[in-house]
Amino acid sequence: MGRMTQRLKAQRVGDVSGSRIESVAVEEPLEIRVAALPASGIPAGSNPLRPPSTTVTTTMRLPGDDFDLTLGHLVAEGLIGDGDDIATMMHCTDVGPDGSPTFNVVEVTLAAGVSLRRPISERTEVATSACGVCGSTSVDDLLAALPQSPSTDDARFGLDAIQAGMAAMRLRQKVFDATGGVHAAALLDARGEVLVVREDIGRHNAVDKVIGWATREGRLPLRGHALLVSSRAGFEIAQKAAVAGVPVLACVSAATSLAVEVAERSGLTLLGFVREGRATAYSHPARVSEADPGL
Amino acid sequence: MGRMTQRLKAQRVGDVSGSRIESVAVEEPLEIRVAALPASGIPAGSNPLRPPSTTVTTTMRLPGDDFDLTLGHLVAEGLIGDGDDIATMMHCTDVGPDGSPTFNVVEVTLAAGVSLRRPISERTEVATSACGVCGSTSVDDLLAALPQSPSTDDARFGLDAIQAGMAAMRLRQKVFDATGGVHAAALLDARGEVLVVREDIGRHNAVDKVIGWATREGRLPLRGHALLVSSRAGFEIAQKAAVAGVPVLACVSAATSLAVEVAERSGLTLLGFVREGRATAYSHPARVSEADPGL
Repeated sequence: MGRMTQRLKAQRVGDVSGSRIESVAVEEPLEIRVAALPASGIPAGSNPLRPPSTTVTTTMRLPGDDFDLTLGHLVAEGLIGDGDDIATMMHCTDVGPDGSPTFNVVEVTLAAGVSLRRPISERTEVATSACGVCGSTSVDDLLAALPQSPSTDDARFGLDAIQAGMAAMRLRQKVFDATGGVHAAALLDARGEVLVVREDIGRHNAVDKVIGWATREGRLPLRGHALLVSSRAGFEIAQKAAVAGVPVLACVSAATSLAVEVAERSGLTLLGFVREGRATAYSHPARVSEADPGL
Repeated sequence: MGRMTQRLKAQRVGDVSGSRIESVAVEEPLEIRVAALPASGIPAGSNPLRPPSTTVTTTMRLPGDDFDLTLGHLVAEGLIGDGDDIATMMHCTDVGPDGSPTFNVVEVTLAAGVSLRRPISERTEVATSACGVCGSTSVDDLLAALPQSPSTDDARFGLDAIQAGMAAMRLRQKVFDATGGVHAAALLDARGEVLVVREDIGRHNAVDKVIGWATREGRLPLRGHALLVSSRAGFEIAQKAAVAGVPVLACVSAATSLAVEVAERSGLTLLGFVREGRATAYSHPARVSEADPGL
């Protein structure tokens, strides 16, 4: 876990005092840059290895699985459709101030003729004397960006399978074990198998990494799967699940009002407070039964 | 707690089955817009009640304390110095698609002649063929934005006082009690009194609300205080604490590598895993003693 955890000297205060070595989760920024190539090829005057690119986002993240994070972010935010929209992804190898590569920039080149499906947010550029922007910050406007047809996925999961999946995810949270300080997300298939577990300091990033893995594996849309998260679910987590086409989102902790509304409208089954022997279904509960439907 | 919690019908699955009413935390977007007035007054042709404004950020948040959130965000992000930089703050009363005001936009007018201390992030506007941007995403670059002189605050807190503060914060987490789904931040003074507790669906927002409250109360910089958070601490939480000038940041859960580095460089005492009778000091431990120094 080279770059994912860092050991440092800390001071214990209280009933066990003294100096000792502690492990913390590494947090570093990742900048995601995207270059679009016109169908006619590389623009004249451009370096063919580095066509003009635009920064899509910079996010603080747990290093590792950077390509999954990048791919998942682009898919989950509705910026690309699937992996076929991408020609190449590479870590920028430019050096930081200390002279070594930071590995904190991923450069994506879209497939020839492909462009991002929506403009990058212009929220920082707007300057207007009219207000009249409340529309863009209303709940209705946020919900308008969801997939237009609610999921009709007929997946069925027993609560047992969801809970076994949560337990299996927990066993694979290696960075959490070392540090106690990161979230996880996982993907459960219809047979109850945990396909992938990803960790991050941010809940959204952990989900993006899982969706990116599924994109690479050609599994989109995620029909018949359940997305498990070790945390709460807010608007963005529910939206990412809906965009990825997963029919069930199960969280260890609470959901917000807007997560429930997104799930309701998207045909997504949202489970909160998944604990030993119980859970709360906030929307479309029919996909989850007390007993495993396969038993 | 009118707008802060929402009751909805949910389905229990598992050992306690059936339909019941659950409370969830309300999540809605807040757009923060800032207008700067030149020292010469309102620009010609502008509506004096609505000078041209720029969107600083849009954040998903728990409604309530919107002015504290706004003010705290502007201070903690280093965009303004203190409350004197602001002439007015108001909720935009434009209506959303359903015909009623959304109360999801706060418009800030800076005091005459005051402008934001740094440009709003231009990260979404950059389009360049050079890479060479790794500098801006290196850890060193992020750290360069910290206060230049490390805190030399001689505040001292007993671990007892920190833990009593955490317990008092917990007792005042009304939205958490109703929903189980929000974070909290609080400010503890040198006498061990909890001055303010704020809740939010986002950890950063809860901290911004506390810093905004302190700004309104004229308490900046927060010498002699401790900032308590119910969650983990990452880069941004530590940075906000450093910018607000608070000498002690105490978290219930873990800290990241970058939070520790920010704390180390800023002269901030960072306490993690504050639990019954113990805590881990990641930086500048001398400000926290086993016993209350006042006893």
